Amino acid sequence: METLYKGKTKDVLRHKDGSIHLFFKDDMTGKDGVFDPGENQVGLTVDGSGRSGLAVSRYFFERLNEKQIPTHYVHADVENNLMQVKPVTVFGKGIEVICRYKAVGSFMRRFGAYAEEGQDLNGYVEVTLKDDERQDPFISREALELLGILTQEEYDTIQRLTKDISDTVKDELAQKRLELYDIKLEFGKDKESGDILLIDELSAGNMRVYKGEDPVTPFDLEKYLLG
Amino acid sequence: METLYKGKTKDVLRHKDGSIHLFFKDDMTGKDGVFDPGENQVGLTVDGSGRSGLAVSRYFFERLNEKQIPTHYVHADVENNLMQVKPVTVFGKGIEVICRYKAVGSFMRRFGAYAEEGQDLNGYVEVTLKDDERQDPFISREALELLGILTQEEYDTIQRLTKDISDTVKDELAQKRLELYDIKLEFGKDKESGDILLIDELSAGNMRVYKGEDPVTPFDLEKYLLG
Repeated sequence: METLYKGKTKDVLRHKDGSIHLFFKDDMTGKDGVFDPGENQVGLTVDGSGRSGLAVSRYFFERLNEKQIPTHYVHADVENNLMQVKPVTVFGKGIEVICRYKAVGSFMRRFGAYAEEGQDLNGYVEVTLKDDERQDPFISREALELLGILTQEEYDTIQRLTKDISDTVKDELAQKRLELYDIKLEFGKDKESGDILLIDELSAGNMRVYKGEDPVTPFDLEKYLLG
Repeated sequence: METLYKGKTKDVLRHKDGSIHLFFKDDMTGKDGVFDPGENQVGLTVDGSGRSGLAVSRYFFERLNEKQIPTHYVHADVENNLMQVKPVTVFGKGIEVICRYKAVGSFMRRFGAYAEEGQDLNGYVEVTLKDDERQDPFISREALELLGILTQEEYDTIQRLTKDISDTVKDELAQKRLELYDIKLEFGKDKESGDILLIDELSAGNMRVYKGEDPVTPFDLEKYLLG
């Protein structure tokens, strides 16, 4: 397969039949060898972490498909770290949408004067630009429109999908007595239909999950979820 | 008079008759001795800059009063660096509202991947929390409501006042062939009436003004405006 794009934790490949596939690498975001889904750089490499992230992603994408929530997911080949996806275009140079149930991470670093660590945030949604050079800045609905990145209608659709997807993941985790603190989603537009789709992955790499007082590690998430 | 609060460029005093006064100091925001209204620290001290900022503030506040735009301004005693103001409460620990006509400063530092330096922003409004420790973080309308800082109705009122005030300042400057790039406003609630009022100052200390291609210094702003 041809490599179209090399990402931090995944590469985008094109099969000779034209289909698009994500290759889940064993690189994880974090800092100084410590895993952190809130970090924006590769911090460690762990054998089998790509396969594990793909197995968890497959589980969640299949739940979303059952609920008819539109995603780019087509099929997963877990043993080969490959997920086939629909071709999409992204918004601007890419946006990330965060849904927060508990006040942790960058929310506390910004709003700690007004919030207690761990307080309920009821699925508060915010958007960042994918821009390593500028540390993925937060951006308002108004600025997204001003800069031609999202129309108001697209923003509303993405906000609604983010709530539906995040609530689905939260409910799935709750059935395993796990708690979702926050989750970071990406969206694109289906190149064929123009529909807005959830893209990227759905694994420990883009969510903070707790069991009681303790953060759940990526491999433990797979174990709790898939047995 | 009794000092109630010592700020970076102004102190808040209470007269023995109970009235509240701002004392405009000769300290200016900036870095390494260079004036910058976008900075969040005192960078230099210049004799007469407090009096000059007050003279300019008086000019703008009087224009706003003529237009019946609600402000905390009561009276200015320019020779003594004192402005009498109405007593107010602030929102949370204080918010700042920025109205942008040209893309410069922190807008470019965050959104430079999508904007050209100096491009028109048509009076785009955004809000920051006054929080030195956390570098005055930007905050969305939704988070302001979530954290109990502003109701949606208060946000709408502040957004409308910000546009009216900023447009008034922009028009006044345009009459002197000066151009307003951006302006940072503060708001409070009148302790008596509960009305939302413009507070703080209106001078080179909280706006970026250009003459042609060149930034206008605080003393030059006074000279151009007041002759």
